[in-house]
Order: sequence, then structure tokens, then C-alpha cells
Amino acid sequence: MLKEFPLKQIHVTDVFWQYYLKLIKDTVIPYQYEVLNDAIDVDVQAERKDNNLPTGKSHALANFRITAGIEEGEHFGWFFQDSDVYKWLEAVGYSLEVYPDPKLEETADQVIELIGKAQEQDGYLDTFFQLKFPKLKYRQLYFSHELYCAGHLIEAAIAYHQATGKDSLLQIALKFVDHIDAHFGYEEGKIQGADGHQEIELALVRLYEHTGDEKYLALANFFIDVRGKDPEFYDKEIQANLESGLATDKPSVNLEYLQAYTQPKDQTLAKGHAVRMLYMATGMAKIAHYTKDKELLSACEAIWHNVTRKKMYVTAGVGSTVAGEAFTGDYDLPNDTMYCETCASIALVYFAYELFKIEPKAEYIDVIERALYNGILSGASIDGKHFFYVNPLEVDPDSCEYNPNKGHVKLTRPDWLGCACCPPNFARTIGSVERYIYTKNEADLYVNLFVSSALTIDDTVIKQTTAFPYENHVKLSISNGAGRTIFIRKPRWAEGIQLTTEANWTENDDYFVITVASDALTLEVSFEQPILYLRSNPKVRAANHQVAIQRGPFIYCAEQVDNEADLHLYHLDKNKPGMLIETSALLDKTLQLTLAAKKEQLWDADLLYSYQDNMRFQDTKLTLIPYHLWGNRGENEMKVWFK
Amino acid sequence: MLKEFPLKQIHVTDVFWQYYLKLIKDTVIPYQYEVLNDAIDVDVQAERKDNNLPTGKSHALANFRITAGIEEGEHFGWFFQDSDVYKWLEAVGYSLEVYPDPKLEETADQVIELIGKAQEQDGYLDTFFQLKFPKLKYRQLYFSHELYCAGHLIEAAIAYHQATGKDSLLQIALKFVDHIDAHFGYEEGKIQGADGHQEIELALVRLYEHTGDEKYLALANFFIDVRGKDPEFYDKEIQANLESGLATDKPSVNLEYLQAYTQPKDQTLAKGHAVRMLYMATGMAKIAHYTKDKELLSACEAIWHNVTRKKMYVTAGVGSTVAGEAFTGDYDLPNDTMYCETCASIALVYFAYELFKIEPKAEYIDVIERALYNGILSGASIDGKHFFYVNPLEVDPDSCEYNPNKGHVKLTRPDWLGCACCPPNFARTIGSVERYIYTKNEADLYVNLFVSSALTIDDTVIKQTTAFPYENHVKLSISNGAGRTIFIRKPRWAEGIQLTTEANWTENDDYFVITVASDALTLEVSFEQPILYLRSNPKVRAANHQVAIQRGPFIYCAEQVDNEADLHLYHLDKNKPGMLIETSALLDKTLQLTLAAKKEQLWDADLLYSYQDNMRFQDTKLTLIPYHLWGNRGENEMKVWFK
Repeated sequence: MLKEFPLKQIHVTDVFWQYYLKLIKDTVIPYQYEVLNDAIDVDVQAERKDNNLPTGKSHALANFRITAGIEEGEHFGWFFQDSDVYKWLEAVGYSLEVYPDPKLEETADQVIELIGKAQEQDGYLDTFFQLKFPKLKYRQLYFSHELYCAGHLIEAAIAYHQATGKDSLLQIALKFVDHIDAHFGYEEGKIQGADGHQEIELALVRLYEHTGDEKYLALANFFIDVRGKDPEFYDKEIQANLESGLATDKPSVNLEYLQAYTQPKDQTLAKGHAVRMLYMATGMAKIAHYTKDKELLSACEAIWHNVTRKKMYVTAGVGSTVAGEAFTGDYDLPNDTMYCETCASIALVYFAYELFKIEPKAEYIDVIERALYNGILSGASIDGKHFFYVNPLEVDPDSCEYNPNKGHVKLTRPDWLGCACCPPNFARTIGSVERYIYTKNEADLYVNLFVSSALTIDDTVIKQTTAFPYENHVKLSISNGAGRTIFIRKPRWAEGIQLTTEANWTENDDYFVITVASDALTLEVSFEQPILYLRSNPKVRAANHQVAIQRGPFIYCAEQVDNEADLHLYHLDKNKPGMLIETSALLDKTLQLTLAAKKEQLWDADLLYSYQDNMRFQDTKLTLIPYHLWGNRGENEMKVWFK
Repeated sequence: MLKEFPLKQIHVTDVFWQYYLKLIKDTVIPYQYEVLNDAIDVDVQAERKDNNLPTGKSHALANFRITAGIEEGEHFGWFFQDSDVYKWLEAVGYSLEVYPDPKLEETADQVIELIGKAQEQDGYLDTFFQLKFPKLKYRQLYFSHELYCAGHLIEAAIAYHQATGKDSLLQIALKFVDHIDAHFGYEEGKIQGADGHQEIELALVRLYEHTGDEKYLALANFFIDVRGKDPEFYDKEIQANLESGLATDKPSVNLEYLQAYTQPKDQTLAKGHAVRMLYMATGMAKIAHYTKDKELLSACEAIWHNVTRKKMYVTAGVGSTVAGEAFTGDYDLPNDTMYCETCASIALVYFAYELFKIEPKAEYIDVIERALYNGILSGASIDGKHFFYVNPLEVDPDSCEYNPNKGHVKLTRPDWLGCACCPPNFARTIGSVERYIYTKNEADLYVNLFVSSALTIDDTVIKQTTAFPYENHVKLSISNGAGRTIFIRKPRWAEGIQLTTEANWTENDDYFVITVASDALTLEVSFEQPILYLRSNPKVRAANHQVAIQRGPFIYCAEQVDNEADLHLYHLDKNKPGMLIETSALLDKTLQLTLAAKKEQLWDADLLYSYQDNMRFQDTKLTLIPYHLWGNRGENEMKVWFK
């Protein structure tokens, strides 16, 4: 079984990813702190058009100050607003682990101190319930997100402990986990149910990995096992609150939405809320990793298969509908009404990596790479101060304005969101992107991604040097690596990939497998990154008879700003060669793509329908940019799939 | 200015329409009475997936019995449930006018007597408010539908009076109108606002036409004029109810939804709820017809232009979104998430006919014909006992089941609907289809539709004999018609249309214009009905690069039952000839269409995306049926637009 490397063993020098790591350190983390502290004037928008959603400010740190008794006021924002702070702290931990920064550490220490003050004596911690509904603690789990927030607290605590060696946040988390452990379990008198929003499960396994204490693994296993065991659990909980006068409303709980219609081990399809589904699957895979539970693993594999063979966009976006932010049916992948929440692609990466660590098939890294370079990176603007919740594959500004079915599809990234799950999730995930480059399996090493970086394992130093994705070769220098086996992934998008080395090596579809025998070894990998015309499975109606353009790891899209309006009228001519043009208009270095195209001409007549076959085309070109960079130049049309 | 003929002057003998007229008389009207009276066991479904909507029974007549004090119980169903009864009575009136039926008349008389008993002494009549919220009468107009129901009562009363000469329902209606007149108007102390759902406006003009009393025209004009004059009217009404303790909730009123964002005369775009929009436009056109109000007429023309040039489906369906059952932006015509409510196409016909009567341009009849033969007729099953609310242009059963964005799209027609506006609207509209065949302009006569029928005007008898749409010629015999001018519409779908006659005639793009000089004249019109491949304006993304098939007045669609699954994989080959096959599988006589096609083959690999260009096609055929007949053979795929 494979393991991640601690971030501090990996030093990234990559031209592409350095931009984002620096952005997160220098801009995203400070900016998000200011927003969470309501210290700057930002436009906090609802994640979709609905006047009942919280907007205007974050108030996340203020909620802690009020709970701690050092400020007057009321709780504001979503009932899971605490998790924004935890995810931010986790991002800070990853940043400090690689780039020490005393000033940032001091700020974080103050936030941690504040969290400690807000925590109750008995360990409970959730500002929403503490301030608004203290009698309902752990009593409306279908909705509460208390354990979801606890999960994010745990992850932040581990990251911060690893980075700084300071255990104050870890102590807060452990105290809360003890409180949870005392209240949940199969033992008589304990609550036999799980949080409506999964997250604690994967976090508890990470806590087990961090501390070695098996009780955390057992508690994680309990939360997975108890879910859906009694499908009436949430209804009974609601009924009990009604009877005891603790609540007055009787909501109808959609068990598919929160994956509690049956036990997770019996689930084979990706259903319901996409982030919940994939956080749960990540937790299941992490548990199966240690417990060797075959049922759980086989459920994970079935869910993986369903997502990646039937329900995943070409950008690695998932979640085909805004209604419940959810998966829908097989091959149902509308490009303009979908959800594709940034958090859902992040969750897909987490899930994929856990499966990879159980069995190192390249297809897991294929999806991770697809998500990182496309559906996740699109979640933030290049200035690091604007964030998408929803990542569409086609936008028509007019339709987004006038069609309420697209009320959730924004044309540019807002400063912040009332439901701000995505921005700090982006920060913690892209801020620890190093973890996906290499994975270890005892002495063996998997090189998953082409990213300029140095990895230090004991005496061994592996140095990866490349200007990828801008160039087509990668050099690996390995010193003191004798005895190790190196697996270098062969990406599917590469053509003519070749390995040059003096060492002995073999290859299979997924990997070059090199046996390191000398103390100083050099490997050179070279390949082509042709312009690829992807087709979707014919069952996918929304992309039928169209192509998406991929080059290297990037899915490309066209924006109106580089072309003419009515992008749907462009038809590509794949027999004519495309042209790559380096530009500094977006990132310092961006490879634009210009393809030969013909454009259907508009009609002169003001008619909706015509009996004449009056299609006329004009030869032209279509300019495309990497998908993740769209929406950085104002409101305009965007499109991924082309005829 | 043109006028309609009373239904009794037109005797339909047409092979196509006779089926529907007989169905309405023999099946639809008796069936709907049983449903409205809860006398048969039917599955009354919600119009979309929403557990809060009324289902299970109609209760419409029971509401009247309870209000009349002859039954115990509570109001059940939508607050506008009364209108179902009124629309049914209107359909009965039209049926009795042409086909006297003492038993049906007796039943209707009993219903009318019941309505009379439910009416209050002062004339007010609305079972919802009488039973549930008597203090809120006329006090929450943004929502109430009181005047909407009154409008349908008026229309029923006119139809019943015309048919039977009995004025009991008319007296009820007049008494209610007097009550309304006493409470609404610009005079001090009266309410200066309009019902959220338009309908009374057009009904009051019909009452003016029926009685000649100008006060009804003036009241109609008031309701159009006052709408949107004070955009805060509804908010003030809500505030007043809150302050006086009559209501506790403070809803947010969407003024575009109910077309009250500005005065109707200043509206140029079709916005908001489609049925409200088009009932209002019909009312505006009817008023402009008599008042010669140029501003109002020019608003009507602008709205017409916007609907028919930018927002109308090829089936004459309108309303692109379920959210608010509304129009969206220009050219935004999704085929699978749209609304296309049967009532909205009906309202479009009403609007078109009023504009035609002002200025007899053939384009108005083109739309009426398109709606009648397609988007309205599809509203009912061929057995007359099942009804669509939503009329999609593409259904994928899997996606309709799993994607909540399509929760309103039903695959087959339910027995009845909790919101049952469409079924009796279908009955009254198709049940009086005669009115659209001919229109008079003083002595002149417009022949709008090819329908076998006899029209009697004083001494003149015009006999239209045709087996259209099954054959391609129409014979008109005119006796005692000397001095009249006959205008015969030249449908756009016809090719090589020719007139043979001994009389003098001319023609323009829209009409053959024949001067009748003799007492016995025969006209023969012959034409071709080729298979037409319609293209939509390139701005329409959802139909781009696809064709819809039309033959004669019928839009065709393919259903899975006649073909293989995955209809989206069929590509038509329009260079090969299509074949018409007469079948009795649906109607006694249906012209199926078989077209040469190739079908994209499914993949062997279980992959979502492929870098290979692996499209393979197989030559095959695609069988299509007239769109209005889809959904009569169980749940299956259906599609109108093809590549």
C-alpha cells in the first residue's frame, strides 16, 4: 500500500504550479483572512439566485468571537460557517510547512486561541448551535453539519501540527473528538447516526494516521457503518424534536441526497449531493485501506466506476444539477445547467488519491490531473481574489440572465460567496498540490505528475526538471537511489512518449518501470502534446457529435473576447493544423490555441424558422485558452464542446 | 375589422377534426365532469415534482357544494380551482351550440344552479376565499386569482347563453361583475389594482361584445391601464394586510412574473408567466380593437413580434422554463427543460386571432394553425382521458427520472392534474375549433383553414370539401354568394398551390382573392405537402445544426417505440426521399413518415471520453409520427429536432 510524502519533503520549482503556490501564499491566504474577519469591503454574493440565502459578509471569525464572549452580536451566515475558518487554517498549515512565515503563524495562532476560547468546557464546538440552538446539539444531524465542521477542524489541526509542531489546535480537536466519541457509537445510550454531511469520516482516519490511535479509525468506521443502517434514523430524530418541543418544523429528508438510503457498503452508484457523496467515498476508501474491508472497497470501486464512466465532465467537474447540488442519471451531462462545484472536483481528487494508494492504477492519477489542471483551478481567478462555486462548460450570458434554470451559473467569479465552502477548499487543495506529484510504496517511488520539483527521501534526492506543460521533456536526476524502483506515469494525452536512461527498465500501458542500480542516475522522458479532439460517449446527449479540445493536461475553451459572439456557430476543421501561440495576457505564460474553423452565418431575415436550407459558412479561426483561465476578462460567452 | 362567426353557423364534417370534436363531446366533457365531481377513481398528479402541491382529487364541485352549504367539508385544491368548473361549462356551451344534448344540458343546469347557490348575496363568488379567507377578499390580488376565476365565469356564461338561450349563468356572472365594478376603478375609495393573473380583461371585452354594454369595455380597459401604473401596488397591499393582522407572511412579488413592472401599453417584450402574458396581450388586443388605442395596439404588435420571432417553439409551444412557467430570453429555446404549457399555446392562439381580426395578415393564422395541429392537440391523449400540462420537444426517460431540472416533464399524460388548468382549457378550445376556420369582414370572407365544413351566412352557403391533411385538394362551393370577396389563405408549408375557378381572382403572398359574381361558384385549390426540413434561426442554440420535419400543418417527431433507443444518434439524410405510410395504429388514419437515416453506433468500450475519432454509422431508417400523437404508447424517448 502506498503512502503520501509529507509536504516538506517536496520542494516545487515548477513554472506553472509555482505561480499558484505563490498566489495562495501571498494573496489567497491573506485575502481570505481579511474576508473571514470582515476587514475588507467585498461583494459577498449568494451562490445562486435566492433571496433567502446569506450574503453581504462572511462573519465567520465574528461568530467565534461572539461565542467566546469577547464580542456582542448574533451568529450570521450558514450553520457550517465555522468550517470556512478551519479550511483556511488548514491551508495556512500547508503553506507554513513549506514556506515558514512568522507573521502568518502569529495570525493563525491568534485564530486558534480564539477557537479555543469558543470551545465549551466539555469539548463541544460549533458556534451556530452554541449561539442559536444549544438545545439542539447533535439532535438534528440530517442538517446540522456539526461533525462536518469537526472534520474540517481535525484536518486543520493535523496540518498545523505537522507544519509548526504546535499542538494547541490539535488539542482542541482531540477534545472535541472525545466529546463526539462519548456521544456517538453502538453502545447503549449513544447516538446511532451520522452527520448529514460527510467529512468527519475521512478526517478521523487522517487523525488515526497522524496519531496512530486506533480509536479514531474505529469511530470513522462507526460513522460509515451506521449511515443508512436505519433509514428512518433522521425521521425519528425530527419526530423526537417535535415531541419534545425542541423544533416545530417537520422537514422531509431526502435520503439519496445525503447517501443514507442504505449502508455505504451497499452503495454502488454516485447519487445525491456530489460533495457529500465523494467525501463519504474518500472516507470509505481510507477505512478500507487500513481495515482491508473488501465490501467497502468494492463499493468504492463501483462508485468510482459510476462517476468516471458515466457522470464526470471532461473538466473532471461532477454534479449535473443545481437541485441538491447533485449527481443525476448516467450520461446526463448538460453543459450549461450543470453544477460542477469546485468542492466536488476537489472531493473527486481526494477519492481518487485514496484509491490510488490502495492500488496504483494510472487512471486514478489521470482523473486527479484532469481535475487539478481544469475543474479545480477554474475555481479561482488569476488574481486569487475571486472564486467560482459553479464551473460550467458553456455560458450564454443572455440565457444566464433571463433563464432562472441557470440562476446559479455566474459569468465571472464573485469576491466571495455566502456559502464559502469553495474558496478555502481551493486554498487548502491547490496549496498542497505537492502531495500528488509523488507517492511512495515502501522503497518504490511513483512519479505521478510532471512538475519541476525536488523530493528528498532520507538520503535519496530525486530532482525533476521540466518546463512542462510549455515544453515536452522531463529530466529526473536520482542521487543515492540505488535499490529503489521508479514508476513514471505515461499520461494518456501524450504521444510518442519515450524514456532515455542507462538503467534497466520495462514499461506497461501505465508506467515506465525503472530499477535504480547506481547512486547517480538520470532519466529523460520526452513526448509530444498533440492537439487532441476528444469525443464523448455517444450516450452523452449534450456533447454528441461535438469535440472538446485537449492539449497536454489542459482542456481548452473558447471565450467571446478572443472570438466573435455566438460561439455555438463555430465548426472546427480538424484536418487543418492548429497553432499554439504563447501569450502573457493571462498567466505570464499561456499557450493559446488557434484552430481552423468555419462559422455559420446569421440570417438576414428576422425569422425563427425557415423552410429553406439556408446555412452559409464563412472560413475563420477559433481561438481557445486553457479552460481554467476562463472568466478572467469580464462577462462573455464561453464554450468547451464544438461541432 | 373582422369578426368571428357564431359556432352554430359552421358545421364541421372534416375527417381529422371530426375525431376531436366527437371525442370532446362524447368522452372529454363527460369524463371531466366525473373528475370535477370526484365520481371516478383517477390518478390526480402534481403538475411537477413537489410534495407541497395538491394531488389525489379535484374537489372542484365539492368546493361549490360546501360553499353553498349543502355539504360539510373544507376547501381543497388550488385557490383557482373554481375556474376548472367554469372552463368545463364553457366547453359544454360550445358543444351544446353545435350538438344539442338534453342530458348534458340538464347536468350543466344543475352545476349552474349550484354555482348560484354558492354565490353570496352581494354577488361575490370565489369558493377559496369564501371558505378559507373571507377577510382577504380582493385584498391579496398579486396571488388571489379571484378576477381570473371571474373571467372564466364570464366566458362560460356567454357560451352557455349563446348555446341554450338560458341566462341563469349569465345573471350570476353579471352580478359578480357588478360587485367587481363596485370595488375596482379609479374612483376614490375603489381598489386601483389588477388581479395577478390576467383573464378578466379579455372576458370583459367578450361580455361587451355579447351585451353591447360599454361599461364592461371600460372596466376591461381600467384593468389593463391600472396594471403596473403603481409598481408598488402589490407590496402596499401585502404591507396593509400585515399591519391589519390579516396576513402574517411577506412574500416578495416578482413584477415581471405577472407583467406589472410597467403599464401594458409600455411593454414590448414577452416576459414572465407565459399564460398570464398572453391572456393579457389578448385582452389588450381586444380592447385596442374597439378603442382604436394605438399605443395599446403597438404594444401588442411588439409583444407578438417578440414571441413569434424570438420565443416560440416550432410546435407553437411557449414558455422556456418551469421556473415561473415563464418566457426567458430571446432565442432561448431548450427542448428538454422547457415548459410549453398547453394553456400557453392556447393563449397564443387567442392572441393571434385578435390581431388577425384587427389586421388579417396570414402570419397570424400560420401560428394558429401551428398551435392547433401541434402544441395544443398534444395536450390530450387520443382517448380523451389523459392530459399534458408540459409539452416537451425531446424526452429522455432516464434524465426525466433522475434530473430534478426535468421533474416537470412527464413521459405520458396523467389522468388529471392537481393544477388542472390545461384539461378543460383544451376542451373549450378544441371544442370550438370551428371559430378559426372562417372569419368575416363585412360581406367579405376569409377562409383560414382547410377543414371540411359548411358555413351559412344569411342566404349564402359556403361548402368546403376536402380530405386534407390526407389529400391535397380543397373544393369550395359557394351558393348565393354574389357580391362577396373570398380570401383563401395560402399556407407557407404548401408547394405549387393553385386555384382553379371561373371567377375573377388575384393573388398575393398570403391569399387568393376571389370576387364572387355568380350565384353558384366552385373554387378548387390544389397543392403539394412536401416533407419540409425546418431550420431554426442560428441564434437558437438548442436546435442549431438540426432540422425539424414538417409536412402540411404537422410537425413530426420520432418515438423510441417506432425506432431504436438513443434517438439523438440518428442523422437524417434529406437527399434520399422520405415515405408516407398510412396507419391506423393511433388515429384511425395517421400519416407516418419514414426517412432515410444513419445512426451513430454505440461504443464497445465502457468509457466516457475517447481521444480517438471513433464515430461509426449504420444506414437505417427513422420513423416519425405527427408530434401531437406522441406519448400515447407508454413511456419512451421522443425527439423533434434531428441532425
